[in-house]
Amino acid sequence: MATVKATPGLDDYMAALEGRLRETVASHPGTVADAGAQALAAGGKRLRPLLVFLSALDGADPIPVGVAVELVHMASLVHDDLIDRAALRRGRETAWRTHGSSGARGTGDYLFARAFSELAATGDAEGVQLLADAALALARGEALQHAQAHHPETTEEEYLGRCSLKTAELFRAACLLGSRDPALGRFGLALGIAFQITDDILDCTGSTIETGKLAGNDLREGTPTLPLLLAAREDAVVREALAGGPLDGALVRVAGTGALERAREVALEYAAEARSHLDGGGFRPELEALTHIVVERRN
Amino acid sequence: MATVKATPGLDDYMAALEGRLRETVASHPGTVADAGAQALAAGGKRLRPLLVFLSALDGADPIPVGVAVELVHMASLVHDDLIDRAALRRGRETAWRTHGSSGARGTGDYLFARAFSELAATGDAEGVQLLADAALALARGEALQHAQAHHPETTEEEYLGRCSLKTAELFRAACLLGSRDPALGRFGLALGIAFQITDDILDCTGSTIETGKLAGNDLREGTPTLPLLLAAREDAVVREALAGGPLDGALVRVAGTGALERAREVALEYAAEARSHLDGGGFRPELEALTHIVVERRN
Repeated sequence: MATVKATPGLDDYMAALEGRLRETVASHPGTVADAGAQALAAGGKRLRPLLVFLSALDGADPIPVGVAVELVHMASLVHDDLIDRAALRRGRETAWRTHGSSGARGTGDYLFARAFSELAATGDAEGVQLLADAALALARGEALQHAQAHHPETTEEEYLGRCSLKTAELFRAACLLGSRDPALGRFGLALGIAFQITDDILDCTGSTIETGKLAGNDLREGTPTLPLLLAAREDAVVREALAGGPLDGALVRVAGTGALERAREVALEYAAEARSHLDGGGFRPELEALTHIVVERRN
Repeated sequence: MATVKATPGLDDYMAALEGRLRETVASHPGTVADAGAQALAAGGKRLRPLLVFLSALDGADPIPVGVAVELVHMASLVHDDLIDRAALRRGRETAWRTHGSSGARGTGDYLFARAFSELAATGDAEGVQLLADAALALARGEALQHAQAHHPETTEEEYLGRCSLKTAELFRAACLLGSRDPALGRFGLALGIAFQITDDILDCTGSTIETGKLAGNDLREGTPTLPLLLAAREDAVVREALAGGPLDGALVRVAGTGALERAREVALEYAAEARSHLDGGGFRPELEALTHIVVERRN
């Protein structure tokens, strides 16, 4: 994200954000602080706090909001990995592998509560409400993912609904928390969907070294992502693999159906939609750059 | 709790609270709403919202605060049952048994987020901070419970620390959210510890019909509660059972050591301490009644 890093004030913001995240997570020593620090050290793109910064009005302090949004994101990852029994996240061992189920559950709840605590300390009750709505969406999206698991007949619309809940609503909240501008909210929602589709394509194509995750995870879990559900329509082997059948060779066949390219077209459409919401709004140009970066990234 | 039910306005409050809890949980149809409704229908004493009502200053609306506190409590129960793989809660099947791990995880996160959402909607940022701190304590207490599991040498002090985090901090928050009076905060903390010790005694003595739980759960889980750790000091069979050894006959031996009576004395001391914090404060007399009720209850 070199393009975005040249923005005045951004380096300071990102450094302050990391410092504040570290302090927040360390505030109560014990398992939850250790597991929280582990989740934090694993890094991540800090894309949601970046959205807060780039959306924020002059004069507003984007640090507590950025911290809160990132903590909700981290909490959801810790809980996701626990439920999915994922072994790796960003190339590192996940919290439940190191600290057990209860450690991971406590850590997720702790990060979640800290997020609301940080935001509440600013006195912004409307902001807390926005974040709570996004957190609700996350929980509903995760439940929907499990309801849709092993259902290759999941429609594109159902998939997009899940993306909104699981990913894009928090992007929207990050933009709205910074600005309270509905246009930026719509931008965030479309950007989040473009981001998630790209993530799902990378799961089919990426190497562990680039993405920090094991490739083909969605197929193994039976999660009907856009590339997988498009491929399943064309290829019976993929369809059966997605429904819970044998996985051998199925991932290679996904690529053979052209589903990756078609999914990419949809991601590009959402990126273009995100750009359209910026038109004439006088927003920071880095937001437009992000609509390209999220679909061009390799991890 | 017949004594308390005669309080003017309380029946209306409790009815309104139940209605609002139902609406809140049902606001987004799907697994999380279904599982939330199930957790809600299982009932419970609604002791924390009762504390909010009895502590609240005249003119304040105790409904959103009571809802928020109860939702945090419900969220923690759903997550506890998931991690502990408990089959029954209040005589009903637990959320993870009906809706699976991801359903229960999503439900807990959803209830948690709704709690903050309800409270944030009142515009009370300080209150959100108080509730977030209590939620942090809950998560830390749950992690501590697992760290202490199968350690019969856990000290009384360590046990009491865990009780504060897992139970009493939310009692304190309920009292403080209603009143912002530090004396009532101290009352809530002591009351919560008395309540938890009594719970732990009931786990050794209660029948499933009375408590809605399977008796002896703590011993099976290796949770060093006050009666169990006191009994373990006197009886090698209990000590080994608590450390993860054979359970046969151990629960009966707990009673034989006199540990139940000694634990009850400690509970009564905390109930007395709770009463002392009410002295001269001009608080509602029902609060004093509660200090007797929590230690005399059978479920």
